[in-house]
Amino acid sequence: MQHEGRKALFITFEGPEGAGKSSQADALADHLEKAGYTCIRTREPGGTLLAEKLRALVKGDLGTEHLHSQTELLLMEAARAQHVHELILPALAEGKCVICDRFYDSTTAYQGGARGLDAEIIERLNNFATSAKKPDLTFLMDLPPERGFERIRTREMKDGPYDRFEMEKLDFHRRVRQSFLDIAKKEPERVRVIDADRPREEIASEIEQIIDEFIH
Amino acid sequence: MQHEGRKALFITFEGPEGAGKSSQADALADHLEKAGYTCIRTREPGGTLLAEKLRALVKGDLGTEHLHSQTELLLMEAARAQHVHELILPALAEGKCVICDRFYDSTTAYQGGARGLDAEIIERLNNFATSAKKPDLTFLMDLPPERGFERIRTREMKDGPYDRFEMEKLDFHRRVRQSFLDIAKKEPERVRVIDADRPREEIASEIEQIIDEFIH
Repeated sequence: MQHEGRKALFITFEGPEGAGKSSQADALADHLEKAGYTCIRTREPGGTLLAEKLRALVKGDLGTEHLHSQTELLLMEAARAQHVHELILPALAEGKCVICDRFYDSTTAYQGGARGLDAEIIERLNNFATSAKKPDLTFLMDLPPERGFERIRTREMKDGPYDRFEMEKLDFHRRVRQSFLDIAKKEPERVRVIDADRPREEIASEIEQIIDEFIH
Repeated sequence: MQHEGRKALFITFEGPEGAGKSSQADALADHLEKAGYTCIRTREPGGTLLAEKLRALVKGDLGTEHLHSQTELLLMEAARAQHVHELILPALAEGKCVICDRFYDSTTAYQGGARGLDAEIIERLNNFATSAKKPDLTFLMDLPPERGFERIRTREMKDGPYDRFEMEKLDFHRRVRQSFLDIAKKEPERVRVIDADRPREEIASEIEQIIDEFIH
């Protein structure tokens, strides 16, 4: 049950694959539910039926067709526009908290910082797709690419082959990391850098502390 | 066979549903092939496997999910980016003519003029998605909305129900028409207004005349 007078929080998790974004987002949702909030757990790209279809297209095998970088960016933003307007904004308007695995900082880092698409058009698109809605708080799960790779490799032995993003070269992931850290430097109030190379429980308790301070 | 020294032309057809864009594009392709050009006939949204999947998503039934106008615009531009970089630019580079049923003027007219999305972001997106590639010549098949509707109604008796765009109100289609005419006014060299409310053969011969003059 949602307590009266509580602000609906919009919280995002960012960082590379293998940094534990998803399990920390789940843990935070539990923590907030215990504190009386109603939480929606969602992810990008995805979060609605249409956006999940776009996720499958972006991540899937296109056969002989090459996914051009402009197309990739525009598909990410299309999925985001649908997610924000169909799910996130209505949920926040109903007083629910939204906890999202990846949001527009991922586009800035992957399509901008790493792929080298124009930063200004990405900023314009991030703004347009979200109707300028910003997360209240973003946890950047920071991890050296080598460590993320080790974790993915362990995980993927069970879960199937690497997807297209995971196959990118180490250098690409170094640029992603640097771009995320640059965002945190520019917006230190919103984006909190979390050292993700630690035991899960230790990270969860740091995140809970930050959230509790943020709320009170 | 492509003759030596002939310029690869990029020609688009614009206008409402029911104006005969597709059959005039076919007729023009035949005419150019007879004159020794190799032509690719294509359409938007669509033209590649991925872009046709996006077309199906944009035009199809999303169930209870509402397709938000920002999503629609971004999906159109994603399909365009893929079409331009995967098919149009490579074909032109090989010396082929490309004849396309709808291109970015449709986005300016439908998502901009008619749905009222910001004209400046649409222009930025049109530029980004196409890497600033412009058609050499655009035929605007101009028709009062009432006449287009009559033609669609006749056609659709055979082809199934109206799609989402065809269901839009008459007023919407009046704004589309005005927006197309505004584009032609701004770029009279590129965009030629064709009175589409005439017999098919009469229109085809006017288009052939314009093309022959343009080539020589």
